[in-house]
Amino acid sequence: MPTEKNEPEIKRKYVYSFGGERNEGRSDMRNLLGGKGANLAEMASLGINVPPGFTVTTEACVRFFNSSHQFPLGMWEEVEEHLKNLEAHLGKQLGNRSNPLLVSVRSGARVSMPGMMDTVLNLGLNQETVEGLAEKTEDEWFAYDCYRRFIAMFGNVVLGIPGDKFEEVIHKKKTQRKIQDDTAITAKDLKAIIGQFKTIVRKAIHKEFPDDPVDQLRMSIEAVFKSWNTDRARAYRRMNNIPGDWGTAVTVQAMVFGNMGQTSATGVAFTRNPATGEKKFYGEYMVNAQGEDVVAGIRTPNPIHKLEQDMPEVYETLTRVYKKLESHYRDMQDLEFTVENGQLFLLQTRSGKRTAPAAIKVALDMVSEGLISKQEAVMRVPAGQLDQIFHPMIDPSAKVKVLAKGLGASPGAATGKVVFTPEHAQSMADKKERVILVRVETSPEDIHGMNVSQGILTAKGGMTSHAAVVARAMGKPCVSGCGALEVDLKKRKCKLGGVEIKEFDSITLDGSTGKVIQGAVPLIRPRLTSSFTRLMSWAGEVRRLEIRANADTPHDALVARDFGAQGIGLCRTEHMFFDEERIFLVRKMIVASKEETRNEALKKLLPIQRGDFTEIFKVMNGLPVTIRLLDPPLHEFLPNSAAEVKNLARQMKVSPAALAKKIETMKEANPMLGHRGCRLGITFPEIYRMQVQAIMEAACKLAKKGKNPLPEIMIPLVGHVAEFCFVRDHIVEVAEQVKQKMGVELPYKIGTMIELPRAAITADEIAREADFFSFGTNDLTQTGFGLSRDDAGSFLPHYLDLGLLKEDPFVSLDQDGLGQLVRLAVEKGRSVRPDLHLGVCGEHGGDPASIGFFHQLGLHYVSCSPFRVPTAILAAAQAAIENP
Amino acid sequence: MPTEKNEPEIKRKYVYSFGGERNEGRSDMRNLLGGKGANLAEMASLGINVPPGFTVTTEACVRFFNSSHQFPLGMWEEVEEHLKNLEAHLGKQLGNRSNPLLVSVRSGARVSMPGMMDTVLNLGLNQETVEGLAEKTEDEWFAYDCYRRFIAMFGNVVLGIPGDKFEEVIHKKKTQRKIQDDTAITAKDLKAIIGQFKTIVRKAIHKEFPDDPVDQLRMSIEAVFKSWNTDRARAYRRMNNIPGDWGTAVTVQAMVFGNMGQTSATGVAFTRNPATGEKKFYGEYMVNAQGEDVVAGIRTPNPIHKLEQDMPEVYETLTRVYKKLESHYRDMQDLEFTVENGQLFLLQTRSGKRTAPAAIKVALDMVSEGLISKQEAVMRVPAGQLDQIFHPMIDPSAKVKVLAKGLGASPGAATGKVVFTPEHAQSMADKKERVILVRVETSPEDIHGMNVSQGILTAKGGMTSHAAVVARAMGKPCVSGCGALEVDLKKRKCKLGGVEIKEFDSITLDGSTGKVIQGAVPLIRPRLTSSFTRLMSWAGEVRRLEIRANADTPHDALVARDFGAQGIGLCRTEHMFFDEERIFLVRKMIVASKEETRNEALKKLLPIQRGDFTEIFKVMNGLPVTIRLLDPPLHEFLPNSAAEVKNLARQMKVSPAALAKKIETMKEANPMLGHRGCRLGITFPEIYRMQVQAIMEAACKLAKKGKNPLPEIMIPLVGHVAEFCFVRDHIVEVAEQVKQKMGVELPYKIGTMIELPRAAITADEIAREADFFSFGTNDLTQTGFGLSRDDAGSFLPHYLDLGLLKEDPFVSLDQDGLGQLVRLAVEKGRSVRPDLHLGVCGEHGGDPASIGFFHQLGLHYVSCSPFRVPTAILAAAQAAIENP
Repeated sequence: MPTEKNEPEIKRKYVYSFGGERNEGRSDMRNLLGGKGANLAEMASLGINVPPGFTVTTEACVRFFNSSHQFPLGMWEEVEEHLKNLEAHLGKQLGNRSNPLLVSVRSGARVSMPGMMDTVLNLGLNQETVEGLAEKTEDEWFAYDCYRRFIAMFGNVVLGIPGDKFEEVIHKKKTQRKIQDDTAITAKDLKAIIGQFKTIVRKAIHKEFPDDPVDQLRMSIEAVFKSWNTDRARAYRRMNNIPGDWGTAVTVQAMVFGNMGQTSATGVAFTRNPATGEKKFYGEYMVNAQGEDVVAGIRTPNPIHKLEQDMPEVYETLTRVYKKLESHYRDMQDLEFTVENGQLFLLQTRSGKRTAPAAIKVALDMVSEGLISKQEAVMRVPAGQLDQIFHPMIDPSAKVKVLAKGLGASPGAATGKVVFTPEHAQSMADKKERVILVRVETSPEDIHGMNVSQGILTAKGGMTSHAAVVARAMGKPCVSGCGALEVDLKKRKCKLGGVEIKEFDSITLDGSTGKVIQGAVPLIRPRLTSSFTRLMSWAGEVRRLEIRANADTPHDALVARDFGAQGIGLCRTEHMFFDEERIFLVRKMIVASKEETRNEALKKLLPIQRGDFTEIFKVMNGLPVTIRLLDPPLHEFLPNSAAEVKNLARQMKVSPAALAKKIETMKEANPMLGHRGCRLGITFPEIYRMQVQAIMEAACKLAKKGKNPLPEIMIPLVGHVAEFCFVRDHIVEVAEQVKQKMGVELPYKIGTMIELPRAAITADEIAREADFFSFGTNDLTQTGFGLSRDDAGSFLPHYLDLGLLKEDPFVSLDQDGLGQLVRLAVEKGRSVRPDLHLGVCGEHGGDPASIGFFHQLGLHYVSCSPFRVPTAILAAAQAAIENP
Repeated sequence: MPTEKNEPEIKRKYVYSFGGERNEGRSDMRNLLGGKGANLAEMASLGINVPPGFTVTTEACVRFFNSSHQFPLGMWEEVEEHLKNLEAHLGKQLGNRSNPLLVSVRSGARVSMPGMMDTVLNLGLNQETVEGLAEKTEDEWFAYDCYRRFIAMFGNVVLGIPGDKFEEVIHKKKTQRKIQDDTAITAKDLKAIIGQFKTIVRKAIHKEFPDDPVDQLRMSIEAVFKSWNTDRARAYRRMNNIPGDWGTAVTVQAMVFGNMGQTSATGVAFTRNPATGEKKFYGEYMVNAQGEDVVAGIRTPNPIHKLEQDMPEVYETLTRVYKKLESHYRDMQDLEFTVENGQLFLLQTRSGKRTAPAAIKVALDMVSEGLISKQEAVMRVPAGQLDQIFHPMIDPSAKVKVLAKGLGASPGAATGKVVFTPEHAQSMADKKERVILVRVETSPEDIHGMNVSQGILTAKGGMTSHAAVVARAMGKPCVSGCGALEVDLKKRKCKLGGVEIKEFDSITLDGSTGKVIQGAVPLIRPRLTSSFTRLMSWAGEVRRLEIRANADTPHDALVARDFGAQGIGLCRTEHMFFDEERIFLVRKMIVASKEETRNEALKKLLPIQRGDFTEIFKVMNGLPVTIRLLDPPLHEFLPNSAAEVKNLARQMKVSPAALAKKIETMKEANPMLGHRGCRLGITFPEIYRMQVQAIMEAACKLAKKGKNPLPEIMIPLVGHVAEFCFVRDHIVEVAEQVKQKMGVELPYKIGTMIELPRAAITADEIAREADFFSFGTNDLTQTGFGLSRDDAGSFLPHYLDLGLLKEDPFVSLDQDGLGQLVRLAVEKGRSVRPDLHLGVCGEHGGDPASIGFFHQLGLHYVSCSPFRVPTAILAAAQAAIENP
């Protein structure tokens, strides 16, 4: 039986002051104090005016969750003590009628999760203190405005009452009074509104609204803790790979008021333009308002430069502060500020989120300004976002309605009218209409339809499904495996997360995030800049990993080379056959019962393959090209429909029934574990022999013309060294024949994929025979985890929800498990052949976290899709900087 | 490019003498000299009369194959030198007209491969020497009989001419002369026959028959070398796991003649009865014949005891010799002898092949006789054959026609009339007819048909297919995955390897070897003897591994306990649902869209499961019972036919279309890597909670009655420790609730299968949480090798043919690859929990070679099917003796 694992509770320091007499935090304490708490303390140290307060640590939050929502021992007493100090410092008391202290209670995680967690403002108000506040400020309107805000916010955040119930009351009042602007509501109105708010609360919780400010504070801290685990916050963390066990800090801070009339204001600003990176102060503010008003869009805020006219002194101070902060933090900052009666307070500073183009521009500008080094600039651009630069993207300012979410199978965004068949896609395209092809899943017959579509959406299939692979090869956005999609082909409509979408309705796909959006949303296409080129060249200087590309066509190879790829790491010969004409020959070859029929098909395929390789070698002249021998997903190549079977049978001169029967016998229970890879090359050596002949004839012919082709022939799905040797011997035989026939001495390498656990375990035996290893981490993940990528959709999202897995192992390599298998293979391989050439050609080759791991293993290269090459270059550079 | 790997040829000793003036071999040199050569030398040392000769080593044979069929350097010169010595010793010369030496040229591998390789007798004859032999022996008939035998044998073996061409000539001559017996042919006839034989050879090879005896010898040695690689020999090696790179030795030996008249004879004998083990000299002989005649069955040989009357002195000598050999070799011997003019020569001795019952009896008798020790007796019975004792077997003396071969999926033999549907099986069974159910593949609807059949034959499906699993559970013979079977359900017939079999035709299945045999073949059922019991008790004394059984029903548990199982290592709860009534509930549970519907089904399953567990705990009182929580092969549980869907839909009160759609969405691309095992228990925790409740309620109730149930709850398909913890926490919660409710303090364990490579790699993390590991080597083989057992049929046999794999990894654990993964998991697991309990519950748990490996890893137990328990006990004992 398992043992109990509750550790004894130890008394720790849970609360840290800032901005008052004591300043206990620093910006490097963000793990404990959250970004907000740490930076408030840091700003205070810099002499910047922040309202004083204190922060309850993230550790307290974690303990709160680990002990059934109880505050940890001593935490509350510390809060009370810090509150007392704050009251003493400000000369105000929470709940004191004549001189009431009001505070805000805000969340703050290690990393910014904007808008995901909760905040309570104006805490401390009740019927008594609101009157005191009115008297003290001589501003009844202001006091009651604060009070109605507080009740609504506390009611929503702490008591769980839907916010629109409160908004409705205000809306009604405004309608009744025929006014537009909140500020036109009178103090009398506000009092009436407050009465109605309290009624709403009473009805909802069957109790009075809590009047005791200390109760209010305790309840608010609890509520902010709990907001760490709302569905919304969890979903955000999942999307951004933020661990669920970090917890949030809670910052309690004296209120300052932007809603004290025309000399008060509230605003947000960026020290540079977060969309473009332009070095220009950027932001907006609102006079006589609290922060929430800016976000809620009740009034249109003013652009920040207008503040220079409205409040020239404040603007001057703000300018001095933002410059100080940017040069202190050496990064573009995102600020929140409040002006209370002409006095500027900073409420928050953090690194500003920015688009990829902005990140590049800011980083490069800061190098020019001498603020940061080149290496720091390289570290500043998130590698994972870099491909934003190449794909059309949804205008970040657009409001979108997400209908459903699938797998982001091929990046970029696309907008178009929904069609359900390739034929309709074609006929619409003929009319110059932009369409999105929506299918349960695609098959090779859909290729022409996919080709004329803007994007592809499928209900089934994973990241390696036909739709995903073809879409990526075509550079088209694709969302696959969208479980919430139900297609009704007959009625030409579908449901997307419950919403009915008819043929020719517009939708928008975001193939980077997997989102399916209603209607046509504006897209923007970023352009490559000279900044990008400069950043890439700096990255190139520091990285140790070579970057190659996965490319199956001369066009892909060209794109990859232009992006700086140093070779082709994976040329998938089966992808060369997706073409309609060629697939017929492949089918013929696959279903052939007689060697004769197979050889006939192979004979026709030979010149086609030779042509493919010739073009690729030309493009990649002088760089290595790793060609994987045929690894057919048999079921994807077999004809599906009766019509296709009939057609193939006619051309093969066999009866459709006999052919259908043959196809039936070839269906596999588990195609992923079936007759594929080198298993095919072993049962039918003539297929690989044809391919090697095509490769070597192409290479030798070019070599004769003075070109420098560097073929690396790769054997797929080797599990046992005997398989490798068998195929290798065939390759050598054919290659030597071709060389002799053509009279050329051409070096070539023969290596293997390491994509089965058994290959990894016996890597030493295989390394004795192979010139290189290329880790196929996709299949290694599937077999090592026993997890079919195409089927994982029924449980993997649930695993991520439950936190059983931190990340989808098909997106980022499972370093703790399968990474160890890769490490073992590297060690075993090197133990017998220290100069063994090692690379990765799975999807993980384009994932920054995985690239960091491969760098640490000391591999020679990673290979990824052409558009991921810059991402991989940058990630490799960042890895080299982090682990020199 | 791969490097060349030809090692330089070194001069070695390739030829060893025996029986003459020099005797260079010993019985322990069988790897070099083959069994025959080594034992001839050994017999000569013992003073037993063997015709002198010499042996060319197996090493020479291996080098012959490695250098394109060239004799290794110096070998032929050694042969010539040894031949010269032999001639000098015997005073005869090869090719000398007046005193010709005749020799035999025989194969001899390390282990006996009876009848698989070639032999040439009477070598040295030509037109001159045959006349010399006739003159010297004064027996023209004898000399020409030898000559015609030689031409036919050399023609067949060395020149590749079909033997029936020669037999035809003799047959014609006998018809023409109206005689029956070969010996009635006259010398004149023989000369005419020889003329015709030479014509046959001339026509076939377009050359004269080679007359030079030295050419004859060289060609014969080559031919015997080559016979190592005939299809027949390779097939035999594959079936018996004999490596292809051992090669055969060639023994060249002076001829002695059993065909020199009435004082000559030839015979074969066993020192004890090889079928029963009875201690009685056993064999047969033929007067005036050569060895081949005994085998060919031309005349009926005499039983050996008749020799006492025919040749009393020879019999006395033979008796002395066989006793000497048996006590020298301390094992039952299989002898070949020839009597030439009243003088006895031994031509061969080797350990006699025997049935499992004979092996047991001989071993036990020899212990009583003081010949061998108990431990040697344990080593003498091949563990892999032990299950012969329990299953009906095909009478070894019966002649059979094998139509096809599939997988030996459930052992034992069965005979019956072919039926193609479960309904026909039932109606035939109602008429008391014995039937064999022949299906493309079976599904749960076939259960009743399987239940009334003698055996099951399927075209598709592997060792874990529905048919195989259910048949083993039922203890019925089954041949599955028989690719040569084509079923035509409509016409009620099938083809088996080209032969048409109609409904109600009889066939016989051998579920141990996978053979499908035409007609009804006599079966015998061995009985358990007291010898067996005694052997088991000796085995029990030495073994270190515990043996448990895989049992899903109280009946299986009882069988296992009777055979000495020390617990249940695997109770597969999904097998408890194959029953027709229950499967409905399981289907309902699986396809339920609402938790409500699922809970309804679970509620009904609870008492059924509780009942199952109660009975099993009762049977296994005091012994551990490892229960694996549901690991459903979803596709096997889903309804297949429209009728079934309709039926289920009606009972679930949903539309058949909706249900069919739901089922369609549940179909998986790769079910082996899909939503199964603990993944189901994580997405639907209520299923496992029901099972744990049933287990604990059953156990607690028995504990209250003073019984001692020892439940061990096992979580399937864990890949990540987080999965284990999640399910474990649910188990603990339910188990503690039940214990509290029933007021019983009952110990229980929670462990996991290690059946995914990732689980093996992270075994240390899992071991921190789990009480025990049970290696599921079936699935570990599938995932580690990336090999679906159900699909491997299309290439695995080819791999075995090519020698890429030595053995089917599903039959015997791949020790070099997956075994290393098991070893890694054991080491990692023990590193954090030295007392971790470790077992195996895959099919390999019953495979002797794998058991030896598990013993060496120091595991605690293996678990296998009930009828394999004695095999496992014996194999564990043998492993302990070999590696104490």
